[in-house]
Amino acid sequence: MATIKDIANRLGISISTVSKGLNGASDISEDLRQLVLDTAVEMGYSTKRSKKEEFRKLCLFVENMDYETLDSFGYDLVLGFKQNAFKHKWDVTVVTITPEFQKKERYDTYLLKHGYCGAFILGLALQDPWMEQLKTTTMPTVLLDNFINGNPNVGYLGTDSYEGIHMAVEHLVNLGHKKIAFMNGSLYSLVADQRQEAFEDAIKEYNVDCNENMMARGYFVADSAHYHVPTFLKEGATAIVCGSDLLAQGVIESCVANGYKVPEDVSVVGFDNIPISATTEPPLTTIAQPRNELGKYAYFILNSLILHIAISRSLLRPSLVERESTARVKIVEDIKKDVKKRK
Amino acid sequence: MATIKDIANRLGISISTVSKGLNGASDISEDLRQLVLDTAVEMGYSTKRSKKEEFRKLCLFVENMDYETLDSFGYDLVLGFKQNAFKHKWDVTVVTITPEFQKKERYDTYLLKHGYCGAFILGLALQDPWMEQLKTTTMPTVLLDNFINGNPNVGYLGTDSYEGIHMAVEHLVNLGHKKIAFMNGSLYSLVADQRQEAFEDAIKEYNVDCNENMMARGYFVADSAHYHVPTFLKEGATAIVCGSDLLAQGVIESCVANGYKVPEDVSVVGFDNIPISATTEPPLTTIAQPRNELGKYAYFILNSLILHIAISRSLLRPSLVERESTARVKIVEDIKKDVKKRK
Repeated sequence: MATIKDIANRLGISISTVSKGLNGASDISEDLRQLVLDTAVEMGYSTKRSKKEEFRKLCLFVENMDYETLDSFGYDLVLGFKQNAFKHKWDVTVVTITPEFQKKERYDTYLLKHGYCGAFILGLALQDPWMEQLKTTTMPTVLLDNFINGNPNVGYLGTDSYEGIHMAVEHLVNLGHKKIAFMNGSLYSLVADQRQEAFEDAIKEYNVDCNENMMARGYFVADSAHYHVPTFLKEGATAIVCGSDLLAQGVIESCVANGYKVPEDVSVVGFDNIPISATTEPPLTTIAQPRNELGKYAYFILNSLILHIAISRSLLRPSLVERESTARVKIVEDIKKDVKKRK
Repeated sequence: MATIKDIANRLGISISTVSKGLNGASDISEDLRQLVLDTAVEMGYSTKRSKKEEFRKLCLFVENMDYETLDSFGYDLVLGFKQNAFKHKWDVTVVTITPEFQKKERYDTYLLKHGYCGAFILGLALQDPWMEQLKTTTMPTVLLDNFINGNPNVGYLGTDSYEGIHMAVEHLVNLGHKKIAFMNGSLYSLVADQRQEAFEDAIKEYNVDCNENMMARGYFVADSAHYHVPTFLKEGATAIVCGSDLLAQGVIESCVANGYKVPEDVSVVGFDNIPISATTEPPLTTIAQPRNELGKYAYFILNSLILHIAISRSLLRPSLVERESTARVKIVEDIKKDVKKRK
């Protein structure tokens, strides 16, 4: 476990400054205090809490998502939540769950018997046993990317898909693309539904040339791209927006397999900005989800729900990360010529 | 100005307990502390702040909205915001604005020259001069019921219209109503657009009988009801959902003027739960906006924006307040007979 000295060394500040930051002294700046706390949480530092405070416990459930390594999707989400909770004197326990676990343990009972005041849930699938129980739970709960209708104890948190997809399309339109295809994710996902609606709106708004053959829904895995990309290319798409970075990876591979170069012949945009998107070949232009901020904000929502403020839904803004998978549009005849040459 | 003694008297607790609540002592419960703080703010108590803290100032702009009396729409919104800000050691100044004021003062400049770190804005109209400036402002800003696309410094806060309208329709369907009309608000309002979409969805979901003649958009004033209600009644509507309580008041008056009794012949549901809706004749069944919670939550969003968490939109859950303007559906032939008798 990290000590105060470890934190001081990492930040290059004195032990007494770290101590001030951890204890909320008023003679250091709020920014420095936040930095000390954030670093303490990231390094696994934990203080002994007073007896009274031991009862302030929150649970963070994780399913279908890696979070333990720096390059995993969940790392920053879990970290952000812990950072804010720690600052406000809550303990957080991370519990990995499976559908089997959910069948064995009732949601409310599990939280109550372990003394949790509320929970943040990552990666729950629509068909999971707890989704049904969440409709009537009395425990304050924040759900990432899932919405529960009509229960004031459950808040939905996500990234604004509408704004993200609009950013992607606008970026491509600004590069001169007029025929843009959409490789979207699973049919059974709230987020994929939102991204679909957003894309259909965006192509109208930006007057993009797109027909039904140029929009497909696979799963959040790379493989499904191979079924659809050849059709997109035959229809003359010069750019492909993807519902996730994993799909975008598959789309790039499929373009290459069909003799098309990315971004010279076809531009590709991902969604999520998962850590590996910086190291694909070529590095992926993508719509970033603010993962650390989502984690931090989840704490604010959960705290509000505990205070009986019934948050229905909260969305954070995404941002465009420009890397090398998008470029200015090429003349269609030139693309065809070059692809032919390569075959 | 209220003193500590005034607060103690109002709450029936000792002066020393009030003092503990105001100073964050750890030997009183969190609930009591919150109550002391909330009451202190409501009674206008203010402590001398330290020099350092004097710089933590937030501004609350109000346009087109009363907030100074208990029965005004804005009272609880302003109070909730102040209560939470006060608890977290911010000063709040309420500034009433007009379009003329906005033409004279640039938004960012006004905040900077007065030393505000951010603002919460109530009641801004779409065509107001500041709406344009908010697209590019660098000041953390929370907007009630207005959305700014693409600026990470501005967050939108509102009540979930979708859930509210669904509650209204479901309530009427449970009372046996099958023909439901919709009297909605202004064409130039984001909230009215959302309520329109929600109603069109809800009538599909609940298989309600409704045609184009049974949906109208007026303004958020009672008068426009008189143009549309006679048509609704001619089409055989037994219930009318309204986009606001003010519209609902007009709808009730118009029903009565046409010989229909509310709720005996026609049920009417409002939206907002403004204070007067409890005292209309009959008292109005309506969808309540959680105004105090909206104010409190606005503080959390503003604080997050100040910490560079780009909140795009946050919606709180509404709730159904059942009063006397809705009742079980009557057989249509009986309604017609009774209305004829009365004329």
